[in-house]
Amino acid sequence: MDDKLMLMIPGPTPVPEQVLLSLAKHPIGHRSGEFSKIMAEVSQNLKWLHQTQNDVLILTVSGTGAMEAGMINFLSPGDRVLVGCNGKFGDRWAEIGEAFNLNVEKITAEWGQPLDPEQFREKLEADTEKQIKAVIITHSETSTGVINDLETINRHVKAHGEALIIVDTVTSLGAVNVPVDEWGLDVVGSGSQKGYMIPPGLGFVAVSPKAWEAYKTAKLPRFYLDLGKYRKDAAKNTTPFTPPVNLIVALQTALRMMKAEGLEAIFKRHERLMNATREAMKALGLPLFAPDGAGSPAITAVAPTHVEAEKIRGVMKKHFDIALAGGQDHLSGKIFRIGHLGFVSERDILAAVASLEATLRELGYEGFTPGAGVSAAARVFAQT
Amino acid sequence: MDDKLMLMIPGPTPVPEQVLLSLAKHPIGHRSGEFSKIMAEVSQNLKWLHQTQNDVLILTVSGTGAMEAGMINFLSPGDRVLVGCNGKFGDRWAEIGEAFNLNVEKITAEWGQPLDPEQFREKLEADTEKQIKAVIITHSETSTGVINDLETINRHVKAHGEALIIVDTVTSLGAVNVPVDEWGLDVVGSGSQKGYMIPPGLGFVAVSPKAWEAYKTAKLPRFYLDLGKYRKDAAKNTTPFTPPVNLIVALQTALRMMKAEGLEAIFKRHERLMNATREAMKALGLPLFAPDGAGSPAITAVAPTHVEAEKIRGVMKKHFDIALAGGQDHLSGKIFRIGHLGFVSERDILAAVASLEATLRELGYEGFTPGAGVSAAARVFAQT
Repeated sequence: MDDKLMLMIPGPTPVPEQVLLSLAKHPIGHRSGEFSKIMAEVSQNLKWLHQTQNDVLILTVSGTGAMEAGMINFLSPGDRVLVGCNGKFGDRWAEIGEAFNLNVEKITAEWGQPLDPEQFREKLEADTEKQIKAVIITHSETSTGVINDLETINRHVKAHGEALIIVDTVTSLGAVNVPVDEWGLDVVGSGSQKGYMIPPGLGFVAVSPKAWEAYKTAKLPRFYLDLGKYRKDAAKNTTPFTPPVNLIVALQTALRMMKAEGLEAIFKRHERLMNATREAMKALGLPLFAPDGAGSPAITAVAPTHVEAEKIRGVMKKHFDIALAGGQDHLSGKIFRIGHLGFVSERDILAAVASLEATLRELGYEGFTPGAGVSAAARVFAQT
Repeated sequence: MDDKLMLMIPGPTPVPEQVLLSLAKHPIGHRSGEFSKIMAEVSQNLKWLHQTQNDVLILTVSGTGAMEAGMINFLSPGDRVLVGCNGKFGDRWAEIGEAFNLNVEKITAEWGQPLDPEQFREKLEADTEKQIKAVIITHSETSTGVINDLETINRHVKAHGEALIIVDTVTSLGAVNVPVDEWGLDVVGSGSQKGYMIPPGLGFVAVSPKAWEAYKTAKLPRFYLDLGKYRKDAAKNTTPFTPPVNLIVALQTALRMMKAEGLEAIFKRHERLMNATREAMKALGLPLFAPDGAGSPAITAVAPTHVEAEKIRGVMKKHFDIALAGGQDHLSGKIFRIGHLGFVSERDILAAVASLEATLRELGYEGFTPGAGVSAAARVFAQT
């Protein structure tokens, strides 16, 4: 049906009506007092969301642009960096490092598995000359639905003492607890079309005092992505370059909604959505791609064995108006991904699981008791 | 009055209702067939708007990001470039060149005056060893309301034969004739919140085959702004990184409106708006900052002598709900700027001039015959 599509991809995520209506307001001038007031409010609320007193800067970029800014402002050519690679996005940060002539050392895990913190500990402990300048980690690996153990890896980085921890929280911020100050995360990048519940177009970078120290001597060239410019202007509640005014007004609305819900409630909701989705998949006999304990509260990847992933996606979209994501790169056709990030309720999971059951039946797959998926999801919701 | 503000700044510019409503549509997935169809349409229409067969790439950036991409993809450290500097934006492109270690040679004119094409001719003719790799020109200098003689400067670049011509058309594209293919412009950067009639958040870069040749050997580091990635994906009607889906749907609507109006009509409208505004200022005894013949059809800068520019802006906003722009950098407080770019009609100019007359009266300035400004503007509209 026209206009009926329900997004269950890991971004863009569903956008609340009041945020959509904010988007449609006529833009105001970005150098006006009215706009500065909005900037002041969203800056405060971004700090709340990040659980930090650090600067949280707003850029007109995608999540990749935010992560690139988070790297090139604090590093110099030849700097040794460890990059955690267990999916498409970890690989991308390694590629950025290589494009900017960093000395990139990848610490890999198979796609679908979490990074092993021990491997980071070993490298960091062995680096007695403190040559490792940064450790770059994807918290929630969108391509595989795996969450990495950021807390433990970060503890090893802190023990090293020199290296910065640079984190991609694109699909974890606003879904999972990311206590930036408590953990001492130096650079935290994210994007608007995820937990923020607004459309794509804004990138966010939180920067610690330690990272600002590194900024002073970092030599990679930059201008549009020069975070020093954003910091200087953020102090005056403005931006160095024209910001996407409408998206910032939408952000204002979305952050108010998030504050009304509360951080704890948001994190618990995402955990429930994940658990219900995972239990439903198990009940339907559909293998989960990420092992228990390493599933991302933002997204569940499923690797069906008796039905083709792309056929499932096709029927889900055509017959039930639900958009699921496919696999990326070598996982194309092998997995499908259910996004449950941002403005997603328990009803959405039930609708998706029920539709998935109907889809499987339509495709002739009979490896489950009818209703088992919905029942498993409902059980999780009843218990937690 | 609440919600009554009329934007007459050079960006964001007024946005048509149907474009605002497009913005408020729920985002769709950027990897979907539906989105590819939209990308195919807007790509075709962007070529129409640019009068080119070249690639016109869409980035999630401000105009500055588009210009930075337009420079760093085609140049290498140490490359000699000529940058035309007669306002804030020309200066900015020189700063970007310096940030990326280019060998920047500025060709300057006083702010408020156009660049002298002869100075470019001399430099280019003297460069018999063809060391000048690019000439970077701001077509319409937003900070001063001056239009530079791009056509003549470009002719000298073509006579040189080697150098690329890289043009900031941020406030000229969609307002003034910029025949990219006819003139052979190599790199043309622009931004969404100007002639495009949509809010800020998208940058555009048109790239010629000659520039793509230079891309092959250009050595400045880049990833998020790597236009090769955008070109490769544009060929498949997609983007390398998540695009601001809602803004692209808004762009689709705006480009359809522009096609319905027609390029010639759009250019003529902007010329009439400029002429009416300039004649009105003269009739009110308010000195124009750009000389006749060098006024930008996008924006008119005024340097009042007997009334303070900031007082005029204050009353215009407070009493008449019209936002005018102030001066930037050393022109702060010395000029005000009337934007007449994008979704602006003759009625808007009459309203602005009438309100300006009322404002001047409120401020005690009596150096004009009441009604003279409106009458001068009306005369232009009647004659052309």
